[in-house]
Amino acid sequence: MEKHDPSPHISSRFNEDLEAVRAHLLGMGGLVEEQLRRSLASLADADSALAGEVVRNDAQVNGMELAIDGECLRILATRAPAARDLRLIVAIIKAITDLERIGDEARKIAHIALRLASLERPADRYREVRHLGRLVELMVHEALDAFARMDVEAALRVPHHDRQVDEEYESIQRQCVTFMMEDPRQIRRMLDLTWAARALERVGDHAKNIAEYVVYMVHGQDIRHTRPEEVEDRLRSRANAGAA
Amino acid sequence: MEKHDPSPHISSRFNEDLEAVRAHLLGMGGLVEEQLRRSLASLADADSALAGEVVRNDAQVNGMELAIDGECLRILATRAPAARDLRLIVAIIKAITDLERIGDEARKIAHIALRLASLERPADRYREVRHLGRLVELMVHEALDAFARMDVEAALRVPHHDRQVDEEYESIQRQCVTFMMEDPRQIRRMLDLTWAARALERVGDHAKNIAEYVVYMVHGQDIRHTRPEEVEDRLRSRANAGAA
Repeated sequence: MEKHDPSPHISSRFNEDLEAVRAHLLGMGGLVEEQLRRSLASLADADSALAGEVVRNDAQVNGMELAIDGECLRILATRAPAARDLRLIVAIIKAITDLERIGDEARKIAHIALRLASLERPADRYREVRHLGRLVELMVHEALDAFARMDVEAALRVPHHDRQVDEEYESIQRQCVTFMMEDPRQIRRMLDLTWAARALERVGDHAKNIAEYVVYMVHGQDIRHTRPEEVEDRLRSRANAGAA
Repeated sequence: MEKHDPSPHISSRFNEDLEAVRAHLLGMGGLVEEQLRRSLASLADADSALAGEVVRNDAQVNGMELAIDGECLRILATRAPAARDLRLIVAIIKAITDLERIGDEARKIAHIALRLASLERPADRYREVRHLGRLVELMVHEALDAFARMDVEAALRVPHHDRQVDEEYESIQRQCVTFMMEDPRQIRRMLDLTWAARALERVGDHAKNIAEYVVYMVHGQDIRHTRPEEVEDRLRSRANAGAA
């Protein structure tokens, strides 16, 4: 397993700065995970109070993004980091954008929960959406974990959930259309469920982005827009050549 | 009107680098605008060949993102820019992410056009969606233009289209639900139209993000998550205090 081996820096203050900003990113990640978990719970339990909290807490997520962004700018301006340290800072600038957008999707799900809370809940408490939710929660968690440990192998596993996400998403779409056709009075509710499913699918995309920044950070290789198998092949051939 | 007044740099090579990367960003912006325009035309004209081209050209957008990202990293690493120059580079790193995602939305609209092309077109050729499309095309164009001229006032006008976008979007949603209820055989087509409307709404969000980076670049002030009126007030009071 490849890990980041931090090289000694000229200034230990610099190391402290890097550690602090990394810790803040992970703190923001923890809050965003919590927002996502609670938005899904508020949907399943028709819990309007909880959904309202999720909506209100989104401001905190946004504030964290701005604060971390400011820290990164300050480090770039005052320390002029190079190589891996520079890539770490740029990766953090990118990752907080994705975290903030996961927060936005959680807020959207909470809004849907608020609308649906007034309707009678189906007996299965939106089982399919909850299932898809667990899947993308796992992706977010794995991506943040890979970021925290700078673990490329773990990061490369994140996109592997994609096919399952796609299948779940397609299945929810089909089911919603069927329900709409059978009972047009269900159309609004079913539209809300398709929005929730789409929000979750986007959360999965953001988790993949975060995982990709880990590879970029450690190897200086940008794997966005590349199929996972290709990336693994490339990294393997580099490792065999002893260049990693 | 406030403009960026580039201060003389120690190295003219550095200035050339900055100009080159800015030109590449605007080139990418032009391609993305073209992709969006063509995706909407392929929808209105049921033109599968055009839709197919949009889908294929998305790879070019992605390639431009990676190339510009690489340029920015190189400038950060070799020139260690400060103050405005640093903010320009970070703003470009952020803006290309939004441009790439606008490209993704155009690709999604082209996919929808491909699906809808086999069905009979309504007489109005999706008038409402085309209207929403023109609105967000305008937002993208204004945002890129503000970026090119580093024109804060122009950038601040971009979010003003928001209310109109929201109204158009809500109106399309309501209409689609009505059509679905009247004729369940229309459900799939109407779902596709709601997806297209949602894609356009997201394009508008990305345009707003790009406009916000202009303010950040020129003033070093991050206005994301702030209401437009508040930002204008703040900038006005700074200008009055002679600090701008």
